[in-house]
Amino acid sequence: MARLVRFGISLEGELSKKFDNLISKRGYTNRSEAIRDLIRDELVKEEWTRTKFDVSGVISLVYDHHKRELVDHLINIQHDHQSIIVASQHIHLDHDNCLEVVVIKGKADQIKNLASKLRSVKGVKHGELAMTTIGRDIK
Amino acid sequence: MARLVRFGISLEGELSKKFDNLISKRGYTNRSEAIRDLIRDELVKEEWTRTKFDVSGVISLVYDHHKRELVDHLINIQHDHQSIIVASQHIHLDHDNCLEVVVIKGKADQIKNLASKLRSVKGVKHGELAMTTIGRDIK
Amino acid sequence: MARLVRFGISLEGELSKKFDNLISKRGYTNRSEAIRDLIRDELVKEEWTRTKFDVSGVISLVYDHHKRELVDHLINIQHDHQSIIVASQHIHLDHDNCLEVVVIKGKADQIKNLASKLRSVKGVKHGELAMTTIGRDIK
Amino acid sequence: MARLVRFGISLEGELSKKFDNLISKRGYTNRSEAIRDLIRDELVKEEWTRTKFDVSGVISLVYDHHKRELVDHLINIQHDHQSIIVASQHIHLDHDNCLEVVVIKGKADQIKNLASKLRSVKGVKHGELAMTTIGRDIK
Repeated sequence: MARLVRFGISLEGELSKKFDNLISKRGYTNRSEAIRDLIRDELVKEEWTRTKFDVSGVISLVYDHHKRELVDHLINIQHDHQSIIVASQHIHLDHDNCLEVVVIKGKADQIKNLASKLRSVKGVKHGELAMTTIGRDIK
Repeated sequence: MARLVRFGISLEGELSKKFDNLISKRGYTNRSEAIRDLIRDELVKEEWTRTKFDVSGVISLVYDHHKRELVDHLINIQHDHQSIIVASQHIHLDHDNCLEVVVIKGKADQIKNLASKLRSVKGVKHGELAMTTIGRDIK
Repeated sequence: MARLVRFGISLEGELSKKFDNLISKRGYTNRSEAIRDLIRDELVKEEWTRTKFDVSGVISLVYDHHKRELVDHLINIQHDHQSIIVASQHIHLDHDNCLEVVVIKGKADQIKNLASKLRSVKGVKHGELAMTTIGRDIK
Repeated sequence: MARLVRFGISLEGELSKKFDNLISKRGYTNRSEAIRDLIRDELVKEEWTRTKFDVSGVISLVYDHHKRELVDHLINIQHDHQSIIVASQHIHLDHDNCLEVVVIKGKADQIKNLASKLRSVKGVKHGELAMTTIGRDIK
């Protein structure tokens, strides 16, 4: 069983009230979980600054699939990085536009590099990299 | 056929060289596409400031699936927002950890709100919202 | 005297150890102050989403002062927004480059708007807006 | 005289119109200067990833000056980093709250480290680091 560390914190009354309002708007039912999430966010950011640590990333690409070479190009790049790509999902946004979501597990630098390569392909309208964790060290 | 607008821009020599180095590292083969991507990035950010405009978002959630109520809770929240959820994908990161990727199409505020709700569920270790576009107005 | 609210939070042991390492690197001597700072950061971000609330902003501009019209232009824009500008400071970075720091107190939209105007002046090499608080409601 | 590099870029008509609207709202009178600013922004971000390169940073701190030890503490930290601090400015926001703006010239890591130390001082309500350039290599 995971050992729990308990400790007390004190907040000035008005600050506490404002924080309670904010987190209730965000869907939290108690302060502790909201604070744990703030802490985890900082730790995940820290994971992305490390060079020899596995993290997880999600690349979202929006493009017009009619440009066939584009699709081939994206597939080729992904195959060149097969060892770190876990899965990808393809969404038809409308007749022309696709959203491709590529899930990656690897080193931060590898993932950023792959995201850059995919985004720079001509015809990709927009690309975003969400930086998250493999969860192993985030409890 | 889409009409193209052509125009010239001038860059100080050293600035141009630095920019060329930067974009070549990012995988671009020419300056124009790199500049178009910078422009599109600004336009997508702008789309997310509008209230009555459809955008697309990708929420990545990392959690431990052993907490069964957690999975039920996430599914219930997603069903309550079924009208804007396009698809979701579930990745097994390891024995304990899952990465769930939820693709959404809707108004910026609705998407941010749903992302907050999903992130705040107890047991979700990390949540990230990638803000992208439905592509219709980004050429 | 400000009333203090005290409450307990529990962290999984390993998470707590990682957080302690992180905050000690950042200069904190105790967990409570680090957590209060995370909370305050969220509240300041919230202040910047409100429309009728005074916040404080700091605009940093780097430019080459040799372009005299540039300096005049920057001064004119600042005078047009005199009611929200508190002070400005001018630093000589080297023979050519200046860093001008403009402190503003006003509504979030006014400040963003002024920052955009100053950044867009031809000859301004870089502009950054730091979004902070007037401190009144952040304890 | 600095050599200018001129080149043409083409934008799809609707994209160009949207971009023109966006930059005119931001105060630009022409597309070229707006594009140069996007390019410079990327180059300044790149400067902050380098380890042996001087950049410029502006730390904004909001605190209640009544806590005398706080002011002493902030001054002591600044003196320990005297070699990279260029200037600092003190603004009285109201009877209790001060905004201190510290201008720094140094390596990215040194500046981030100093910003962390100042922010973590007990009594500092909010701290923001604006990452900018010394301008030498940004034309």
